[in-house]
Amino acid sequence: MQLETLFSPRSIAVIGASTKIGSVGYTLTENLLKNSYTGSIYPINPKADNLFGLPCYTNISLIPHEIDLAIIIVPASIVPLVLREVGEKGVHATIVISSGFKETGVEGKKLEDEITQISKKYDIALLGPNCLGFLRPSLGLNASFAKILPENGKIAFFSQSGALCTALLDLTHDSLGFSHFISIGNKAIIDENELLRFFASDTNTSVISFYTEGLIESKKIIEAGRAVLAGSEPKPIIALKSGTTTAGTQASSSHTGALAGSDDAYEALFKQARIIRAESLENLLNLLSIFSNNALPENNRVSIITNAGGLGVLATDAAVQNGLRIASFGEETKKKLRAVLPPSASVNNPVDVLGDALAIRYQNALEIVVADEETDMLLVIVTPQTMTEDVKTAEAIITIKKHYNKPIIAVFAGKESLEGGNALLRRNGVATLIYPEPGMQALGALARVADWRKQIAVPPIILQNIDKEKARIIIEKVKSENRTTPTEKEASDILKAYGFPFFATYEVRNKKEAKEAAQKIEKNVALKIISPDIIHKSDAGGVILDIDPKDMEVAYDRLLTNVKKNAPDAKIDGALVVEMAKKGGKELLLGLKKEPGLGTLLVFGLGGIYVETLKDVTMRFIPLSESDIDEMVREIKSFAILSGVRGEAGIDILYLKELLMHLAQFAIDFPEVAELDINPLLVFSKRTDFRVLDARIRLEKNTLP
Amino acid sequence: MQLETLFSPRSIAVIGASTKIGSVGYTLTENLLKNSYTGSIYPINPKADNLFGLPCYTNISLIPHEIDLAIIIVPASIVPLVLREVGEKGVHATIVISSGFKETGVEGKKLEDEITQISKKYDIALLGPNCLGFLRPSLGLNASFAKILPENGKIAFFSQSGALCTALLDLTHDSLGFSHFISIGNKAIIDENELLRFFASDTNTSVISFYTEGLIESKKIIEAGRAVLAGSEPKPIIALKSGTTTAGTQASSSHTGALAGSDDAYEALFKQARIIRAESLENLLNLLSIFSNNALPENNRVSIITNAGGLGVLATDAAVQNGLRIASFGEETKKKLRAVLPPSASVNNPVDVLGDALAIRYQNALEIVVADEETDMLLVIVTPQTMTEDVKTAEAIITIKKHYNKPIIAVFAGKESLEGGNALLRRNGVATLIYPEPGMQALGALARVADWRKQIAVPPIILQNIDKEKARIIIEKVKSENRTTPTEKEASDILKAYGFPFFATYEVRNKKEAKEAAQKIEKNVALKIISPDIIHKSDAGGVILDIDPKDMEVAYDRLLTNVKKNAPDAKIDGALVVEMAKKGGKELLLGLKKEPGLGTLLVFGLGGIYVETLKDVTMRFIPLSESDIDEMVREIKSFAILSGVRGEAGIDILYLKELLMHLAQFAIDFPEVAELDINPLLVFSKRTDFRVLDARIRLEKNTLP
Repeated sequence: MQLETLFSPRSIAVIGASTKIGSVGYTLTENLLKNSYTGSIYPINPKADNLFGLPCYTNISLIPHEIDLAIIIVPASIVPLVLREVGEKGVHATIVISSGFKETGVEGKKLEDEITQISKKYDIALLGPNCLGFLRPSLGLNASFAKILPENGKIAFFSQSGALCTALLDLTHDSLGFSHFISIGNKAIIDENELLRFFASDTNTSVISFYTEGLIESKKIIEAGRAVLAGSEPKPIIALKSGTTTAGTQASSSHTGALAGSDDAYEALFKQARIIRAESLENLLNLLSIFSNNALPENNRVSIITNAGGLGVLATDAAVQNGLRIASFGEETKKKLRAVLPPSASVNNPVDVLGDALAIRYQNALEIVVADEETDMLLVIVTPQTMTEDVKTAEAIITIKKHYNKPIIAVFAGKESLEGGNALLRRNGVATLIYPEPGMQALGALARVADWRKQIAVPPIILQNIDKEKARIIIEKVKSENRTTPTEKEASDILKAYGFPFFATYEVRNKKEAKEAAQKIEKNVALKIISPDIIHKSDAGGVILDIDPKDMEVAYDRLLTNVKKNAPDAKIDGALVVEMAKKGGKELLLGLKKEPGLGTLLVFGLGGIYVETLKDVTMRFIPLSESDIDEMVREIKSFAILSGVRGEAGIDILYLKELLMHLAQFAIDFPEVAELDINPLLVFSKRTDFRVLDARIRLEKNTLP
Repeated sequence: MQLETLFSPRSIAVIGASTKIGSVGYTLTENLLKNSYTGSIYPINPKADNLFGLPCYTNISLIPHEIDLAIIIVPASIVPLVLREVGEKGVHATIVISSGFKETGVEGKKLEDEITQISKKYDIALLGPNCLGFLRPSLGLNASFAKILPENGKIAFFSQSGALCTALLDLTHDSLGFSHFISIGNKAIIDENELLRFFASDTNTSVISFYTEGLIESKKIIEAGRAVLAGSEPKPIIALKSGTTTAGTQASSSHTGALAGSDDAYEALFKQARIIRAESLENLLNLLSIFSNNALPENNRVSIITNAGGLGVLATDAAVQNGLRIASFGEETKKKLRAVLPPSASVNNPVDVLGDALAIRYQNALEIVVADEETDMLLVIVTPQTMTEDVKTAEAIITIKKHYNKPIIAVFAGKESLEGGNALLRRNGVATLIYPEPGMQALGALARVADWRKQIAVPPIILQNIDKEKARIIIEKVKSENRTTPTEKEASDILKAYGFPFFATYEVRNKKEAKEAAQKIEKNVALKIISPDIIHKSDAGGVILDIDPKDMEVAYDRLLTNVKKNAPDAKIDGALVVEMAKKGGKELLLGLKKEPGLGTLLVFGLGGIYVETLKDVTMRFIPLSESDIDEMVREIKSFAILSGVRGEAGIDILYLKELLMHLAQFAIDFPEVAELDINPLLVFSKRTDFRVLDARIRLEKNTLP
C-alpha cells in the first residue's frame, strides 16, 4: 500500500473544495495553503471558478497533471462515484473526510463496503472515511480541517476519534512534536495494523502512539509490535484503548460502530505486542513527553534529587509502585555529595539538597548523582522556595541531559513562579511535569520497554504425543451430527489425542476383569456399576471408592450385593474401574477463548472453585512462543504456590508448560474451537500424577456444515 | 487546648524578629504586617530598637499587653528558655518555627521532649517545632515564612512537610480557597488528631485535608473521622499519606524521623475513619477542588455530556472503574433531548452533542439531563472544536450549577483556546479539569463519602461463651515463666476460653476408654500412640486415621500390635483419640497484629497455603463494631465462595462474624498480645462443624515481668 505517497504527496486534489467560509471544504483547502507546504493544490468544485486564487476544476479527470493524493469532502452517497474517478485517474492515495458511513447504521455500512471494494480494485491507500485527515509538520502540510499544525517532532500519532485529535492538538501544541498526526476514522482500508507496520521503518518517527476503540488480527499486531521494538533503533509504542468496561463498550459501539473486545484480552494483547498501555488521556500525554525526550535506560534504578523532603518521599513511593528500584549510591558518591552539600542535607537517595538550594547546589548534586553507575534514570524535583533559582536550575539540568544518555525528568512543582525554568526545559528537550508520581509512572514504563528488549533464553518445548488425525476424526463426527458441543467422552478423547492425562478407566464384565484392570492401574480405584436401569449410581449402592487393587474381588462382590439389594430388577452390564485422584494436588485452569476479530486466547490460571472469585488468571493470544508461556506461568500470583512454598515440593512446571503448548497447538490445528475449558487440571510434583478432572469444548456454530 | 486562640489571635509576639532582610525572623514579621491582619504585633529583638516601624522589646515579659500568640524563631538550644518565659507571661498559644529538634537525632529529641514538658506544664497549644507556621486568609493573617497568602475558602489543610506547603501554596493560589493552611512540623503537641477534632466543629471549614508521613492512636482518628462525617453538616476528610512502600518508609524515617507504619494498616485506618485517601499529590488537588465546590450526591449515578465521543467513552470507562453507575435516562428525557439535538447526536448517556455544538445546545442538554432524577452527578466535557463557545458554555454550566444541588464538574480539554471559559468556571465555583478520568475518580470519591453517610443496619453480635479469667490465668503463667510464646496447647486453651472450636481430643489408657472417647466424639477419629520413647509416631505405625467409632476396639488392638512390632521396647502410656476434620471445609485466616503507636489490627481473609500468595485479606483496627465486621467479611474477594457458589451451600457467616468479634474482644482484654494467627480456621455451612486447625500467639516482650 502506498502510504509513503499518502503522507508525502507532491500534488493534492481537493474534491469538494468549497467557497463557503467555515465549511469543511473551505477550511481544509485553506489549511493546505496557509502553511509552508510546497506541493501543488488542485481544488475541484464544479460551481466555482477559483478558490484562494487557484483555478477550480469540475472533475479530477480534467486536471492535466499527475495527482498523488485526492482528498474527498463530498456527501457520502456520491463518494463511490468520486472514488471511481479517482481510481481511473490513477491516484493511489485518498482521504475520505465525509461522514455518513458505518457509524450511521446498516445503509452506511453498505456504502462503506462499496468504497472498500473500489479502493481494493484501484489499489488506493484510503484514509477514513469519517475522519479529520492528517497533519505532517515537517512538510508544513495540514491535510485536515483541524486548526492547529503542531510542532515538528518524532512522534507518529493516529486516532480512531477525530474529536480526540482536536483536543490533543490543542493540549500538546507547545509541548510535543509530531512526525505524523493522523485521524483514521472508520478504518475502511488503513487501520492500526497498516500504520504500525509503516512507522516501524519510518525514519522520521521514534515513538509510535495511537488511540483506539477496537483492534483486529492479534497476530499482525503482535508481530508488528515486537518487530518495532526488536530492531537496532527500537521505537516504543504507546496506546490508549477505551471501551474497557461493559458500560464503556456500550458507549463505544453506539459511537463509531467499533466492536470493542473484552478488556482482559486487550491487556494481554498489548503485553504480548510489547505496547505500553496508557492508563488515561493525561497519562498518554505524560508518556509521550517522556518517551520522546529520552532514550531507553540501561536498567530500572532511579535516583532522585529534591529540595523538598516530602516530595522525595512521594517520588520514592511512586518509584517502587511502578517497579523501579531506588539507586543505592556507592560510598564514593556519598563522599562527593557530602563535600558539596550542607551538613543537614541527605546524601542518600533521594538526595535532599534542602529548601534553600541555589542552582549551583543542584548542579553539583546533579553532576555527582548522574555519574554514579547505579543511576539508570534521574528525577529532579524543584519546589518554589524563597531562594529557588528556577531558570538557572533548569539550565543545569539541560546541560547534564546533553552530556548523558540517561533518562532525566524534571518535576517543577509550581505554577507561575517556576514557569521560566519550565519553558526553558521544554524548549530544550527535557520532559517536565508538575507532580512527581506521574513522572515515576512514566519512568517505570520506560524501564519496562527497556526490559522487553532483553531476550530471556527459555528452553524449547518439543511437541510430542500429538495425534492430530485422531482428534480430527472426532471433531468431524461432532460437526457432521450438527453439534457444537462434544460429549464428555469425546472431549476427553480429543484432548488425550493431544497428550492430556485423564484418569485411567476400564469397562469390566466380571470380578476377574475388574482385578486385572485394578492391577493395571496400580493405584487405588473406584468401582462404578454399569446398568441401563440405574441413573443415580450412588443412591443404588453402585459406587465404591478408594479400593486397594488387592481387595478388588471382595469389593466387586460387595458392589453386586449392594446393587441387587437396592435395585433387584436392574440389568447389570458390568462395572467401570476408575483410577482415584491422588491427594494433595493443586487445581489449575487451562482454556481457550476466541475473541471475535482478534484471535484465540490461551488462558491459564488458578482453577477449581477459585477461578471466578479470585481471577488469578493470565492470557495470551495464539500463536505463542516458549517465552510467552514462560511469562504466563510466572505471571499468576499462585506461581509461588506452584513453585513450592513452606518446604513443599513445587509442581512439574516444565510439564505444565508442555501441556500449555499442546493446547496452543490444538487451537492452531482446529480454528473451529470457540471455547475450551480444562478445569481443573490436577497438578503435582511428578508429571505422571497430573490429571484432567473435567474438560469441555465448544465449536463455533458457523463452522458446522 | 486553646486552638481557637492559636488560630484567631488578637495579639502576636514575634520572639526572634529580625532586621536581616531575607532571614526567617524578618520575612515572618513582614508577612504578619503586609496583609490585612488587624491584631497587634510585638517584635522581640534585644539588639534592635524597632522593626518595620514597630518598637522592639528585649523580652516577652516586658510587653505591657496581653499576648494571645507567641511565634518563636530562636536557635533550638534556647527555645526551652524562651518557652518558659512565654508560659510565665500567660500565653497559651505558640508556634515554634525553629528547627534542630527530633529531626536531627538523639540530642534534638531530648530538646523536643523538654519543650513538650514545658508546653504541658503551662498549658500551651504549641505548633511545631520545625515548621513553617500557619496562614488564615479570612483574617489576612500570614503567620508563616511562606510568601503567598492563599484565597479565603472552606478547606482546612495541614501538612507534616513544610516544603510541600510551599509547593501547594504556589500550585493552588488561583484555584483553591483555604480557611486554614497549617504546617505542623514535628507535631510535639498539636498533631493530626488534635486538628481533626478542632476542625470538626469549625464553622469556617467544610473540607478537611492533610498530608502525613505517620499517625498515632487509630482509635482517636477513627472516632474523629466518623464524627466529622456523621453530623448534619458532614465534612469530607482527604488525606495524602506517603512512605507507603518499604523504600518510601526508609526515606520517610531518614527525613523527619516519623515512624511510618505499614501501608495496609493505613489503608484500613483511612477506610475505617471514613477518610478519603488521595493517590497522589495531583489527585489530592483534584479532590480538594471537587470536594470544596460540590455537595455530596444522593447516589452514585453519573451523567455525561460531551462534544467528543471518544472522550465520552474514556469518561464512561473511568466512571465504572471508580464504582459509579452510568445514569440510565427515562424515555421522557430522551424525547426532550431529541427535540433539542441534531439527529446524529446521541441522546443516551453519555450524551454526545457533537463537535459543532454551540453554547445553546450545551445549555439545552444540560437543563434536560440535570433535571432527570437518574442524574446524581454530572460531568460536562468541552473539547476545542472550530465552533466551540467556551465562555458561553461555561456560563451555561455556572447557571445550571447555581440552580441544582447536584455535583457538576467541567472537563475543558484544551489549553489557551478554552482558558476564558476555564477561568470563568473557577471564579464561579465550578470545579474544572483538563482530563475526564481524574474527574470521574473524584466523583467516585464523592459518592463513596455519600455512601459512608448511609448507616446500614447490621444485627448486633452478642458475645457469649467467653471465660476471660481462664485465659488470663494461662497468659499470666506464660508471662511468669518469662515466655512470649504460649505452647500449642496453651494457645488452644486460651482461644477455647474465647469460644473458638478446636478438635475434640481425649487421652485414653485402654481399649475401653478409647471406645468411650470415640463414642463421645460421634464422628470418625484418629488414634495416635502416646509414648515418651516414640517421636515420629507415623513411622512407628503409631497413627491410624479415619476410624469409625464402632471399629475402635479393633483399631486400638491394631495400633498396639503395629507399635510393638516396630518399637518393641517403647513404653506405651496410652493413646490420643482425636476428632477427624470434616471434608470440604474452606480455610480462613483470622489474626491480630499490633501496629506500633496506632493500635491492634484484626485481620481476616482466605487462609491455608493461599494466604501469602493471593493476599485476599482485609483488616480493621480494634475496637470495631458489627458493621465494621460485616464490611470485612464482605470485602474479601473470596466472599463469593463463602456465601456459596455453583449451588454449594454457603458457610455460616453469622458464626464467622461472632468469632471475629470474639477475637476483637480478646485483643481488648489482653493488650499484651502482639500477634495472633488462627490459620486455618476450617469453616462449613453448619456452625458446629467449624474447627481451628492451628493457632499461634505471641506476647509483647515488654509486658513480661
